[in-house]
This record gives sequence, structure tokens and C-alpha cells, in this order.
Amino acid sequence: MKLLRYGAKGQERPGLLDSNGAVRDLSAYVGDIDGTVLTREGRDRLRSIDVATLPEITDFERYGACVGSVGKFICIGLNYSDHAAESDMEVPPEPVVFMKATSAISGPNDPIIKPRGSTKLDWEVELAVVIGAHLAYADEAEAAAGIAGYCLCNDVSERAFQLERHGQWTKGKGCDSFGPLGPWLVTADEVSDADNLAMWLNVNGKRFQDGNSRTMIYKPTFLISYLSRFMSLQPGDIISTGTPAGVGLGQQPPVYLEVGDVVELGIDGLGTQRQVVVAAA
Amino acid sequence: MKLLRYGAKGQERPGLLDSNGAVRDLSAYVGDIDGTVLTREGRDRLRSIDVATLPEITDFERYGACVGSVGKFICIGLNYSDHAAESDMEVPPEPVVFMKATSAISGPNDPIIKPRGSTKLDWEVELAVVIGAHLAYADEAEAAAGIAGYCLCNDVSERAFQLERHGQWTKGKGCDSFGPLGPWLVTADEVSDADNLAMWLNVNGKRFQDGNSRTMIYKPTFLISYLSRFMSLQPGDIISTGTPAGVGLGQQPPVYLEVGDVVELGIDGLGTQRQVVVAAA
Repeated sequence: MKLLRYGAKGQERPGLLDSNGAVRDLSAYVGDIDGTVLTREGRDRLRSIDVATLPEITDFERYGACVGSVGKFICIGLNYSDHAAESDMEVPPEPVVFMKATSAISGPNDPIIKPRGSTKLDWEVELAVVIGAHLAYADEAEAAAGIAGYCLCNDVSERAFQLERHGQWTKGKGCDSFGPLGPWLVTADEVSDADNLAMWLNVNGKRFQDGNSRTMIYKPTFLISYLSRFMSLQPGDIISTGTPAGVGLGQQPPVYLEVGDVVELGIDGLGTQRQVVVAAA
Repeated sequence: MKLLRYGAKGQERPGLLDSNGAVRDLSAYVGDIDGTVLTREGRDRLRSIDVATLPEITDFERYGACVGSVGKFICIGLNYSDHAAESDMEVPPEPVVFMKATSAISGPNDPIIKPRGSTKLDWEVELAVVIGAHLAYADEAEAAAGIAGYCLCNDVSERAFQLERHGQWTKGKGCDSFGPLGPWLVTADEVSDADNLAMWLNVNGKRFQDGNSRTMIYKPTFLISYLSRFMSLQPGDIISTGTPAGVGLGQQPPVYLEVGDVVELGIDGLGTQRQVVVAAA
């Protein structure tokens, strides 16, 4: 299933994408696409619905983030060796973990809001895992069984806020609009090999990132198992697994986003996103 | 008002503490003590209730965390000069910001769960601010008006996970049970001077922390204004403002928590907490 949320910001309704590419409404069955419906049982219930009976949305306007009420938005840093090299950082001996503010989450085609004072606004195409179970001290088999699905994420970053404003990365990772998720959550059963997904990102039509999850250092099931030793995971939590080479910081000289720039990105089977950079009000 | 949540874990009900120290139930008026009722309007509605009409809870068993459905649990590091010195870190030229996982939030007297592999389990008594408005690029006056209230927080930390496991502090700050909040959210109107609150923490009856928010470097209104330049804040968000000297890491030699240890802490007017350290299952 390709689960999604559609409608005006803050008023998203649950839906799914049918095999013809049409959005159908799930409001009769669930209140939202969130942790309460992303468990194995919840997904099985959704799967039992006859899609043909669901109302087709003919006045579709906007995708929201494909998961609502996210409890934790966890990210992995430096998880592709080529990106670590371009960032002038070493490949870490264990995963680097940080958190994005959940208030950063936005729809896949919503604008990227350039914060006041931003000078180094950057992009990161990433494969995000959506958790579908309560997991604590999970082994890799439990971790694999605990994946609800996958989605596309742009881990938008402000490098000056992240790296030059003292302390942790928090200030440069959690700004509003820095976490576009979607367009769809593709359930795990429909992703045949998460460890071999092509991913790409263009800025103003120029290809900057051209990678594949096969070169990821720490794989999703390992990451989930690893994280679950430090904190329990809940259905609806998001783990974004890091970005391959080609971010703005890694260019010679660095290239950063300006107001009006257009960012497009995609992962095989998980859809595409398109964001226009706008100035903060 | 002293707002609170009581009952079994995960089934907390909203309540308040009356002037006689009795817990009274607010379920007839609100579903929870969360962002939806912590706005100025929400607090005014609660304040208009005749407390004497609220059912008194006679079979009180447990305080939950005093705020539910927390969106962001933001912490400030090294915000007391004496604590920065004992941590062998410099006072930062601007606030150090990190995030705790919201799944770490627990009741004020719930056990501290020592994670598997933990060797350096530590404590931090902190004054936490509860946000009561949507704030973005707020000046200090707006920040002050956007404070719903204050509560006591123990920013429980695993120093080896935090400092020796590569990358950000996330792994040592967000473990389950590492964020006891409460017993009460004391609304801002009842805290006459947040910049002059005595705070203390004992381990097994021995006083380790004995501080006062007057020696805080960056004050709550500044911190809120500062944070709001990096991310918007929502009602129900928590900002824990850092700890004074006397953590385990700062002892000569360091002292860390073991299973069976008892941690007690308090802040003037905000109540006390008591946690017993237990081993992770």
C-alpha cells in the first residue's frame, strides 16, 4: 500500500494511492495515518479494505507529510562513506544519531522556508524508515518485523546553524519546513529491497545527488536495533537513514540554496518531492 | 494553578492540586493537560472553574508527567557556569541546544531505568519551562507572554552514551525514563520570580546539587526568544533550562547511579521528585 495524507496544512486527511495512481480517501476507516494505524494489525486492517469502494479524490490539491503525529524524528549522520568524505568527517565506528524537531515536518512539495539569517541552506535526499511496532532492545529480526514502511525525506539543513553556532546540530536541523516527508509511506511488503534503492536530487534542474542505498554503511534493520538499545521506538516514529554524496556543503566551492531555487528529489518506488525555497516571513 | 496528570502510566487523567494539597479531577473539562489547554485562553478557562466543584481524588496512586503529548523536549546544555566548569567545558557564547526523545518522559516518582550497558548514569535537577503559545521569531516580551508555566525536571543522562559513543549527545539523553516531569505544572502567574528559585538534588540522602536559577547564564525568556529563531515552538513544548553544579560527572572522582539508589530533587514552589534506580528488563 501507498499510504498518504492529503489536504490543507494541519487539516490533512488519510488516504492511499490506488493502482491507477488516484488518491482515495480513508477517512471512513481511520482518523489519520499515524502510529495508531501503522502497527502490523493496523496495516492488515487497511489491507483488507476493498480499494474500489473508497471515494476517489477528484479535487486533490496537496500532499501532507505521509505520517501524522510523529513522536520522534531520528536521523543518522554520515551514513554514506562518500558523504562523510565530502563533509570532511570520518566514517564513525558506530552510527551518529541526532534528532530533528517534529515541528520541522512538512509536506513533500511544501516550500522550504529559508530562516532569517540563513546563509548556508542545504539539502539531503534520504531514505526514511517508518516504525510500526513498539521496539526496545530489538534484535535485527524484530527490527525488520517492526518496519511499517519507507518514505522519501529531505533532511534540509542549515550548515551555519548546524556547525558554527556552538554545541549540537539541533539548531541547523529542526527549522520549520526542514523535514518534507512523502508523498507516500510505501508499506514494507511492497519494498522488495530497501538496500538497493536509487536516489537522486536536483537543484534548479542540475543533478547534485545520485546515489543508492546499497552504499549505506549502517542498514535500516541494524539502525533500528541499535537505536532501540538507547531508546524505545513507537509506531509512527521516523528514522531517516542518512544521505549520499552531493550535498551543497560538499561542492567545491560549496553551493547553498537561495530564495527561488527549486529542489527536486526522488527514490525508486517512493515517489518524488519538489520544493521551492522561500524567505521566512 | 498547579496542573497535573494522575493515574496509571499511559492512562493519565487531568487534574489540579487545590489549595489544601488535594488532587481534584479535571476530566469533565479537558481531555488532558496538553498543548490544547495550555494556551492563554485554555488556562483562563481552567481558571474560571470553581475548584470546590471538582471531584477530589481519594484513591490517588501516581503522578504522571505533568504535561501530555509533548511535541518537543528541548534542553539547554552548560547553562550554569559552575556546571560548565565541573564538566570541563567552556561557557558557550550562545546557548547549547539539544533534544531529548519525548519517549523519555516519565512521572516524577517513576523509577529511573538504568539501560543495559549503562556505566555512567547521572542526574541533573533542572527548571523546565512549558510553552503556552505558538512562537516564531518571538522577542523577549512575546516569549514571556508565551510561557504557560514551569515544572521540575530531572535531565537524567548516561555520560558514556552521551560523550563516548560518537557524534551527538542524543544517545545518552533520551533513554526511557530519562525525563521525569512534575509533579505539577505551576502556571506562570503563580511563579513570582523564575530567576530566583532554589533547587537541590540528593542521592541516597546526600546533597549533591544545591543551586539557584539566579546563576543561570541564559534566562528562560531569552532562551525561548533564541530558540524561536531556529524552530517554531508550540503549546505543550518543554524547554529544560540546564543544571547547576553537582552532577555525578563533576565529582572527584565521578559518582554514578547504581540500581537501588534513590534520587530526590526539588525546586522551590514546584514540588519534589523521588526516583529509585532499577535495571532495564
